[in-house]
Amino acid sequence: MISKERLTDMFARMREFSGPGDGPGVYRLAFTDADWQARSYLIGLMREVGLAVREDAFGNVVGRWEGAEPSLPAVIFGSHCDSVPNGGNYDGVLGILAAIETVRSLKEEGFHPEHSLEVALFMCEESSRFGAATLGSRAMLGELTVDDVRRLKDKEGVTLYDALKGRGLAPDALGKPLYEGDVKAFFEVHIEQGKVLEHEKKSVGVVTGIAAPTRFRVKLTGNADHSGATPMSLRHDAACAAAEIVLAAERLAAAEKEPPAVATVGVLQIAPGVMNVIPGSAELGVDIRSIDAGTKTRVAENLKAAVSEICGRRGVASEIVPISDERPVAIRPSVQDFLEGVCREDGCSYMRLPSGAGHDAMHWAERVSTGMLFIPCRDGVSHNPDEYAAPEDIANVVRLLEKVVREASKKKVTFA
Amino acid sequence: MISKERLTDMFARMREFSGPGDGPGVYRLAFTDADWQARSYLIGLMREVGLAVREDAFGNVVGRWEGAEPSLPAVIFGSHCDSVPNGGNYDGVLGILAAIETVRSLKEEGFHPEHSLEVALFMCEESSRFGAATLGSRAMLGELTVDDVRRLKDKEGVTLYDALKGRGLAPDALGKPLYEGDVKAFFEVHIEQGKVLEHEKKSVGVVTGIAAPTRFRVKLTGNADHSGATPMSLRHDAACAAAEIVLAAERLAAAEKEPPAVATVGVLQIAPGVMNVIPGSAELGVDIRSIDAGTKTRVAENLKAAVSEICGRRGVASEIVPISDERPVAIRPSVQDFLEGVCREDGCSYMRLPSGAGHDAMHWAERVSTGMLFIPCRDGVSHNPDEYAAPEDIANVVRLLEKVVREASKKKVTFA
Repeated sequence: MISKERLTDMFARMREFSGPGDGPGVYRLAFTDADWQARSYLIGLMREVGLAVREDAFGNVVGRWEGAEPSLPAVIFGSHCDSVPNGGNYDGVLGILAAIETVRSLKEEGFHPEHSLEVALFMCEESSRFGAATLGSRAMLGELTVDDVRRLKDKEGVTLYDALKGRGLAPDALGKPLYEGDVKAFFEVHIEQGKVLEHEKKSVGVVTGIAAPTRFRVKLTGNADHSGATPMSLRHDAACAAAEIVLAAERLAAAEKEPPAVATVGVLQIAPGVMNVIPGSAELGVDIRSIDAGTKTRVAENLKAAVSEICGRRGVASEIVPISDERPVAIRPSVQDFLEGVCREDGCSYMRLPSGAGHDAMHWAERVSTGMLFIPCRDGVSHNPDEYAAPEDIANVVRLLEKVVREASKKKVTFA
Repeated sequence: MISKERLTDMFARMREFSGPGDGPGVYRLAFTDADWQARSYLIGLMREVGLAVREDAFGNVVGRWEGAEPSLPAVIFGSHCDSVPNGGNYDGVLGILAAIETVRSLKEEGFHPEHSLEVALFMCEESSRFGAATLGSRAMLGELTVDDVRRLKDKEGVTLYDALKGRGLAPDALGKPLYEGDVKAFFEVHIEQGKVLEHEKKSVGVVTGIAAPTRFRVKLTGNADHSGATPMSLRHDAACAAAEIVLAAERLAAAEKEPPAVATVGVLQIAPGVMNVIPGSAELGVDIRSIDAGTKTRVAENLKAAVSEICGRRGVASEIVPISDERPVAIRPSVQDFLEGVCREDGCSYMRLPSGAGHDAMHWAERVSTGMLFIPCRDGVSHNPDEYAAPEDIANVVRLLEKVVREASKKKVTFA
């Protein structure tokens, strides 16, 4: 039986592992003392609930509950415990505590899994310290090399390699999968980090895919003429061209409905930026996301065509500089249906929705049947001291995770 | 007879009065040594051509050629000689050198004016040093007080009061008109500082009015949500609202044809300004100009209404913060007709056009019959080391100024 009290206690304990950063909120950068202490606390909890704990060369932790048939592929569930600077106490934490509480509850109920169950704690999910995200999952799955960790540095110049060595870990073992064995399914519970569930008044979201961004810069060059002495008809105003591009990005993304897309111009700078000169240049940073690669590509290509048309018409030169083009990850329909079935049977209010942010689960989703459940977070706020999820929503999703794991651990339950 | 050679020589001499600022171009901030030396050179020229030179408490210089009837109101013509940092050698310089060359030519031709002719050199026309423009004209006309010059400071903290004292001037005399006597007309020749004449392939422009800016800031507050996790339909994107406002400003100004208006969003900042966060706030700086106050007010009011509509529709809060609302100055139609008549008779290619920038002439235009003639400057560039006007255009407009002054000095020529 899931215990709200135990969960509340564990969340309160996790909040204490923070520092030494300034300001409010949780400050638990990967491999710092706070992170390492939180990891120790979680290892202790895993042992307390009866899991056999092992660690890999990157410091990832797996707590195993051997099933009735140990040779069957394992069902893995978990998340991460590091935070951004001045972050919240739910991002990642929810997923790992939900996993531990699920095991505790299943054990209390005398449950016996057929497939082995494994609780996974991934190191270094946030990009805050080393500039790249989900490194623990990537290491576990063999996607992170020794060269990578020698190259990645924090702002003090400490390489990830040295940070790993400093914790007694074995970075030289990277480059091949650290996780050995077959996996039946992977599940992760997370706060939504958006406002959709709150807006739709749903207590759970079944994730349909994980949208990865396509990002590019648009550089515009017009003419920086005198704002008083240049008639409207003789202008080549880079800010006006930029404005049209901002609205084109919005319109083109909004036009994609099924699956949806989002496009954001989060960076917009104009120069010279003074009242009496027409903006002669502008630079935009565009971020486009969809869980469907084709949709995302279509929005990006349509926007590039719009840039070309707008700038041609306005006599403004444009250059498009690619930044990144990551592959979105689909969640298999069979797993979505399975999770939806659990929600429906439970009677909770739920909906399907895409994940706009990246998660450890996306690396698993490329290999094995993977599912994610979201819960609302207040005002959609995350990566912020004000991050908050209601205890009722937390208890509810842990109850669902328990059902998910219970079912998934059965030999008769399979995923296409 | 106007001499291109003399003009070329005087422009070359003027270029030497520059420093000590870094970089290319002319660096002649008001009341610095370079400015004061240029002033001395110009006083010398005035004396050389036979003018009786007097100075006022602000350092403005008037060189008088007494007419046949000294009691008649004077015809004044001139401009300024200070520059912006890294400025050009034509802005202001053209007007004062044209005035001196006109006198020299008229004297050579044995001309005898009926009205007295006065060449005026105005101090501190550029706002670069003390943050306010056309201070010499304002002082001369009694619009600048002792308090004003005690308050105005340069970036080293030197007050204009002390700068004036340092040049042996008498700032305590400010507050009442320093110019005594009646004025028949004021004329100023200047580079256009825009591209209209160049674009229309005209060698002279008859100024129809001097557009003064109405400026305000628009502050927008939306929601800084996650750019991946927030569907398009749930956004309150301050950058999208700003983009609509930029385009509304452009559209509303372009809709005004007779008289025309211009509107520029020269300042546009969004926050937090990162790729993965929807812009939660934005600030725009809007500059609207027209030579017609009613037109300018209409554009400003229409734009404020558009801000309200756009922000209401988008759920973005807006605040409008006034910066300035200067009065545009009309040029009397009788003076425009007079100048056009001179151009027509001369056979040069000309057109009427508004001035987008402010000039010394605008203070005179509020009091007496005032006219301005523009010549093209290459690519419309001004306030820049690349500022350039062709010797032919310069000689041409000085020739026109001579005709203008010759006519205006006649008792039988009157302005309504």
